[in-house]
Amino acid sequence: MERHKNLKICYIGGGSRNWAWLFIKDLAFEKEISGTIYLYDIDAEAAKANETIGNKVMETHNPGQFKFKTELSLEKALTDSDFVIISILPGKLDKMAVDVHTPEKYGIWQPVGDSTGIGGLNRALRTIPMFRDIAQAIQKYSPKAWVINYTNPMSICTQTLYEVFPGIKAFGCCHEVFNIQKILMNIIIRKGLVKAEDIKREDIIVNVVGINHFTFFDRASWRGIDLFPLWDEFVKEYSESGFPNPLENDPDKGSFTSRERIKMDLYKRFGLIGAAGDRHLVEFCPPSWYLKDPETARSWNFDLTTVDYRIKKQEKLKKMSAAYCDGSETLVPKPSDEEGINQIKALLGLGNLVTNVNVPNKGQMPGLPLGAVVETNALFSRDSVQPVMNDCMPNTLTTLTVQHALNQDGIIKAALAGDMEATFRVFLNDPQGYTLSPAQARELFDEMTKKTL
Amino acid sequence: MERHKNLKICYIGGGSRNWAWLFIKDLAFEKEISGTIYLYDIDAEAAKANETIGNKVMETHNPGQFKFKTELSLEKALTDSDFVIISILPGKLDKMAVDVHTPEKYGIWQPVGDSTGIGGLNRALRTIPMFRDIAQAIQKYSPKAWVINYTNPMSICTQTLYEVFPGIKAFGCCHEVFNIQKILMNIIIRKGLVKAEDIKREDIIVNVVGINHFTFFDRASWRGIDLFPLWDEFVKEYSESGFPNPLENDPDKGSFTSRERIKMDLYKRFGLIGAAGDRHLVEFCPPSWYLKDPETARSWNFDLTTVDYRIKKQEKLKKMSAAYCDGSETLVPKPSDEEGINQIKALLGLGNLVTNVNVPNKGQMPGLPLGAVVETNALFSRDSVQPVMNDCMPNTLTTLTVQHALNQDGIIKAALAGDMEATFRVFLNDPQGYTLSPAQARELFDEMTKKTL
Amino acid sequence: MERHKNLKICYIGGGSRNWAWLFIKDLAFEKEISGTIYLYDIDAEAAKANETIGNKVMETHNPGQFKFKTELSLEKALTDSDFVIISILPGKLDKMAVDVHTPEKYGIWQPVGDSTGIGGLNRALRTIPMFRDIAQAIQKYSPKAWVINYTNPMSICTQTLYEVFPGIKAFGCCHEVFNIQKILMNIIIRKGLVKAEDIKREDIIVNVVGINHFTFFDRASWRGIDLFPLWDEFVKEYSESGFPNPLENDPDKGSFTSRERIKMDLYKRFGLIGAAGDRHLVEFCPPSWYLKDPETARSWNFDLTTVDYRIKKQEKLKKMSAAYCDGSETLVPKPSDEEGINQIKALLGLGNLVTNVNVPNKGQMPGLPLGAVVETNALFSRDSVQPVMNDCMPNTLTTLTVQHALNQDGIIKAALAGDMEATFRVFLNDPQGYTLSPAQARELFDEMTKKTL
Amino acid sequence: MERHKNLKICYIGGGSRNWAWLFIKDLAFEKEISGTIYLYDIDAEAAKANETIGNKVMETHNPGQFKFKTELSLEKALTDSDFVIISILPGKLDKMAVDVHTPEKYGIWQPVGDSTGIGGLNRALRTIPMFRDIAQAIQKYSPKAWVINYTNPMSICTQTLYEVFPGIKAFGCCHEVFNIQKILMNIIIRKGLVKAEDIKREDIIVNVVGINHFTFFDRASWRGIDLFPLWDEFVKEYSESGFPNPLENDPDKGSFTSRERIKMDLYKRFGLIGAAGDRHLVEFCPPSWYLKDPETARSWNFDLTTVDYRIKKQEKLKKMSAAYCDGSETLVPKPSDEEGINQIKALLGLGNLVTNVNVPNKGQMPGLPLGAVVETNALFSRDSVQPVMNDCMPNTLTTLTVQHALNQDGIIKAALAGDMEATFRVFLNDPQGYTLSPAQARELFDEMTKKTL
Repeated sequence: MERHKNLKICYIGGGSRNWAWLFIKDLAFEKEISGTIYLYDIDAEAAKANETIGNKVMETHNPGQFKFKTELSLEKALTDSDFVIISILPGKLDKMAVDVHTPEKYGIWQPVGDSTGIGGLNRALRTIPMFRDIAQAIQKYSPKAWVINYTNPMSICTQTLYEVFPGIKAFGCCHEVFNIQKILMNIIIRKGLVKAEDIKREDIIVNVVGINHFTFFDRASWRGIDLFPLWDEFVKEYSESGFPNPLENDPDKGSFTSRERIKMDLYKRFGLIGAAGDRHLVEFCPPSWYLKDPETARSWNFDLTTVDYRIKKQEKLKKMSAAYCDGSETLVPKPSDEEGINQIKALLGLGNLVTNVNVPNKGQMPGLPLGAVVETNALFSRDSVQPVMNDCMPNTLTTLTVQHALNQDGIIKAALAGDMEATFRVFLNDPQGYTLSPAQARELFDEMTKKTL
Repeated sequence: MERHKNLKICYIGGGSRNWAWLFIKDLAFEKEISGTIYLYDIDAEAAKANETIGNKVMETHNPGQFKFKTELSLEKALTDSDFVIISILPGKLDKMAVDVHTPEKYGIWQPVGDSTGIGGLNRALRTIPMFRDIAQAIQKYSPKAWVINYTNPMSICTQTLYEVFPGIKAFGCCHEVFNIQKILMNIIIRKGLVKAEDIKREDIIVNVVGINHFTFFDRASWRGIDLFPLWDEFVKEYSESGFPNPLENDPDKGSFTSRERIKMDLYKRFGLIGAAGDRHLVEFCPPSWYLKDPETARSWNFDLTTVDYRIKKQEKLKKMSAAYCDGSETLVPKPSDEEGINQIKALLGLGNLVTNVNVPNKGQMPGLPLGAVVETNALFSRDSVQPVMNDCMPNTLTTLTVQHALNQDGIIKAALAGDMEATFRVFLNDPQGYTLSPAQARELFDEMTKKTL
Repeated sequence: MERHKNLKICYIGGGSRNWAWLFIKDLAFEKEISGTIYLYDIDAEAAKANETIGNKVMETHNPGQFKFKTELSLEKALTDSDFVIISILPGKLDKMAVDVHTPEKYGIWQPVGDSTGIGGLNRALRTIPMFRDIAQAIQKYSPKAWVINYTNPMSICTQTLYEVFPGIKAFGCCHEVFNIQKILMNIIIRKGLVKAEDIKREDIIVNVVGINHFTFFDRASWRGIDLFPLWDEFVKEYSESGFPNPLENDPDKGSFTSRERIKMDLYKRFGLIGAAGDRHLVEFCPPSWYLKDPETARSWNFDLTTVDYRIKKQEKLKKMSAAYCDGSETLVPKPSDEEGINQIKALLGLGNLVTNVNVPNKGQMPGLPLGAVVETNALFSRDSVQPVMNDCMPNTLTTLTVQHALNQDGIIKAALAGDMEATFRVFLNDPQGYTLSPAQARELFDEMTKKTL
Repeated sequence: MERHKNLKICYIGGGSRNWAWLFIKDLAFEKEISGTIYLYDIDAEAAKANETIGNKVMETHNPGQFKFKTELSLEKALTDSDFVIISILPGKLDKMAVDVHTPEKYGIWQPVGDSTGIGGLNRALRTIPMFRDIAQAIQKYSPKAWVINYTNPMSICTQTLYEVFPGIKAFGCCHEVFNIQKILMNIIIRKGLVKAEDIKREDIIVNVVGINHFTFFDRASWRGIDLFPLWDEFVKEYSESGFPNPLENDPDKGSFTSRERIKMDLYKRFGLIGAAGDRHLVEFCPPSWYLKDPETARSWNFDLTTVDYRIKKQEKLKKMSAAYCDGSETLVPKPSDEEGINQIKALLGLGNLVTNVNVPNKGQMPGLPLGAVVETNALFSRDSVQPVMNDCMPNTLTTLTVQHALNQDGIIKAALAGDMEATFRVFLNDPQGYTLSPAQARELFDEMTKKTL
């Protein structure tokens, strides 16, 4: 009965300098649950560093509640786990450079390149085998554990887990939705309906539909007030100029921001509120809309983030890690906006939670293929994640979404079967792939796969 | 924006002396919402009495928040309503006497006779046209209102609303589930895990599956503890003797109690925890199990409630109503366990709520026919009820449930089409009907319909 | 390209003295296809006998077209087969005696006991492991072969093949439907609409719905004439007296006949024409209808066939087999009514064929569970069996059919998992099982499984 | 019983000079059925002319079997019909000129413009109200009649009939498939496998999947021989040069021919054999593939048929009609390849038939939306059309097909609701619409609808 005081959590990709640090910071405030986090990573040094950082934070902020421990055997890290967290980078950033920049030679431009499109599909090709191995290990060593995936391409990674081990209890988490809740929160504050200190992100009640990074709200409210009319006003005011983001000149984060004009334009097309960053949303649309060329992208006020930019950011984080370890700097915990710990607690039966989640479509998302991983709200309770039933999205939006859902399904099956011909057919079938002749597509496909597989 | 301070609620069956009084008592404690309750009833006097009773309570306990007003035009009562509550008695109790007691001549015994079986189907025959009329009136006068049905046969009434007006926003509510939560609560207290004052019904987290009055929990927990092992122990201890109900000798309520032995026996058959009273559950089972004859019923420790018993109770309530009106007695408000007001508030956007509800199956209850009204948990939020997705029930339980779901569908379609032959076929197809030869069934059917239609 | 001139057909249960002889007789008239039949049987002697009999017939009637060859290695018999025929007796007849007669002690009476009910479920328990082994061998040695099953319980055997090897190309065949076509043919002749010599069974166009042995026609016509009005007249005339069967006094076949009164009574209940023998149909109905006791059965003019009767018949056939082998008697070929060879030819692309078939429900039988083996018409063409889409059966009929389909699914899953508790629950859930208390059911279940597993 | 000797067939669009003449010619050879064809047309003169032509042919070739009669009241033409044929031209050819040529100003090129794409959607907008009226009239005057539609856009017209009158017994017919059967037939002949006189189109057994004009064969065989390897060889030989069509220089038909290179290219992409003319197939693909500009079209060896070309052809036919009427020329009957009469006979119960047909998806085409009109094989028998169940098409092909199926559904619902905004959104969502900015799309949409609605 005291299981939640002695949890075993296996963290695959435990050397992460991103989500892992948020997790550490959140755990520092946690009172109800405790246990040990087993950090598994192919980069042993990074895992070791996080062990040091995590234990330092725990010692000072939450004495004795959680321990961090590097474990380089996946078998040992998994065995008898209650939870498994997966947050890995599939291949180094030089491979991501191929995903993002090689297609540029053929007029294909991508602001992110990790979820869909030519870049996302190529990333999927090297990620799927990793997730196949993880799924098999989980089936063998911890088949009852709840598995939380944070890795992109989110839908493909999560669906791969289910394809390989259908009995798995897994779901994918993404915080993009939170950012759009914050935009709606700001609209409310700007309208003078509430003071900033009297409203929190979670007060914005939203219903999420779609697939990861191409998600939408079909309902949004705050204290009983429908937020669609307010959004409509906002769109009328800002769809041309865009709504400036305070971080847009920040050297570390600026390239990840946008002025939300894509969201506003898609609202005009589909009638729903886009619930992911503009840079993600555009990658699911026909490239003629927003990604014809770098000028078009610029004209819509979002960045084509370069992998160089990411590499520099990564180096900075490496230095911070070293500083945290040697004590020259201190990781100061503060509660993040992440819901990971709340999800874990809900699954332990410590309080129901409704939040958005990525799981296979069992009917919760009508109009999308059954089995495809979709993103909707779900009720988390003891040992259970139950998606809520939704209405169909508008036909026009379903069209694009089905295409990506079928391509995701296709790439998973082709990659698991090792069928490069079938893989190539999926490339051809992406909206970005549509712009290439089969011969060009073949050339690009061969170059990319040669460099990254 | 202040709609929830000025609600219009139409109460069809507003002369009710049962659920209406609970509603009045609950409203006495309500601070967030206010407005007017329009009491519509074919028994004008009863509605008038409730107007008096309701306003008296409001004056003293919740000044000015809600007003009660008799309205004898259904059109006026409905027009511009935010909510419509339906809680009617379909026909007088002498008709119910036919439902319950006429079949006894053919060896068919029914402890309730209002939901299923020969009695429930006969009751449905006179109820369906009433609900057809109500649905048409709602479509005409308040198509956007949320409609809450409390009338039995629950599934049939609610499905009729949707058959007649597919765009209706309706759901059916039933509090049977709460009683089983209380049993589980008592088991926890008896185990010494918590003191009675530190636990509430709502703390028992359950997942509800099935159809109304033949509902089951497939998961139940409290503070993260799985309650199935505790229930299992309880069954081992009490399945033979039964678990005495403190009210079993109460003259007004005793006949409605049981010793939960049916629940325990069905647990052995299906592995799930029955989530309705034993007297309801048995009516969905083959009569050879628990309803062969009155002795069998007695041996399983539940009552075959007579309609005479109900008539006496009704007369008592009439007297109380008069006393409340003339001031010789006072209706003292105290918060009930009902969730009606919480549902209304959640639909107004004043806080999400997860509770069990009866709505058409859009896929939330796999294995049962689509469109059939099923009972499951649902997420209530602003202007929205979203059922959560469930696993299939065990095949063995699905079998019986499908039979009743198909019969309910059949009786609705036959009654709406005025097709008595098709109606008769449904009678033949009930587990109770199975025990009759077609000739006997015809005789019984003719007698019952002649007396009640 | 000349594959159909050099077919390899593997016959599992090749020692059969029933369907195998029909097959031999039909092959004697076949001109388009040729090859070798590999007779596999655990009864080597019986296989050998059929090798002799088959080759004798071929020598005289169809020189050189087909050869028969005993092959006692399943691997060798299967490897590179084009077709696999399965027609086995699961266990000797003394085990069947347990299936049929042991339940009689508890008031459960069965005219056949091989498809459903307590007897059919018990037979399934020993058959499922045999079919699991066959499916695995087919997956290994002849995964591309078309597999035709003639073994009962038909639905369970066929579904087991798919559960174990989802990629199998299998279907189940049953000729019960043909007999009902002949009854309709006779009605037409009796009406004077055609002379007997101008009409053939196949001229009666029927649409088949349901599950094996509980099949129905929802449409039937001849030369554009709807046969339902004629059937309706026939029922009016004969439902009380029954329609005498010319074979009812035949010592070898009489016990298998009936006077079609069940078919006529079910027509009154459901509106469709039963498309299996009365003795099969009754076993799917609540026992209170036609199987309360032997007198009830007699009163409905069908026999409770004893296993002794079957044993005697079997002995006669054994003698005939010996006589055919030693030449003291001759198997004289004449074309049967069976469609096996036509199906094989259609699958080879030698002419399309529409006929009834048992395959998993992919949607062809709405209202029945997906994946359950159902019986409907299908289009046979080169390497393909495509069921045709059907309308729902009436709700009332669907009820009973769903129950059996779910029980069949349940018994397969329980048996494959070796879960005797789950198996027992399915026993309890059969309409015959409904008549037993759990304690009685347990006793009967234990006795039967002990004697036959 | 002699209904098929005295049929009433209502021909809506009875002045047609295309399919009507084929029908007349075929009827000249028909012996089993007879009756009267009621010619209804808004062009009374054209109907009158066909009455004359039809009766002339009947007098000489099939004396007395069928009569043709102009009937200008739709009510009278429909009442008590056994069959209704719909073959209309929705609006004059000058409206079709807008469909086809106005989008050219925006770089959108269409070889046909009657099924999908900007032109097909615009044509749908004026056709849907006509089919709404027809469906309502059928519901009122001949609800039991079988309705055969030949009008384009086929899927949209047929689905509209079902949307308006769900109980209709309607299907859509298209002969495109026959042409591809003939290509396969020629491949067989060229291979020397058979002499031309020993093979007929119907001998080519095919399985049809998809939606009208974007149909594919996923199986094709002749006398048991798989035709895919032969097609594969053919593609290797001719995919670059194309396979010249003997009619490509015919002044009346040349513009409707192609060299099948699209079919071959799509085979490389999807693995299936395109079963419609190249000019139709390209309109369902992203325009970057084959329709970037007229040069691209030319380079793929198909024509962008002008509406001028159609107008000239129409004038020629008008002259022929006059000549047939005044006897200066004679319509010489010869059996066509059409299956209309065979379908009618099969529906009368005079012989089963399997052929391709357009009806709403009830599950026969997995992966495509339920309710969307799809094209597959179906079994025609007495008063019944039952589609056969199919496998999913490859994901990559499903993607494009779902998009068109959803757009067809969207345009029907928008047009029936008179919602021009929703209509515009469907325009935006067509692959051709994707190439336009919303502003351009609006301009084009406004111009086209203004000119044609």
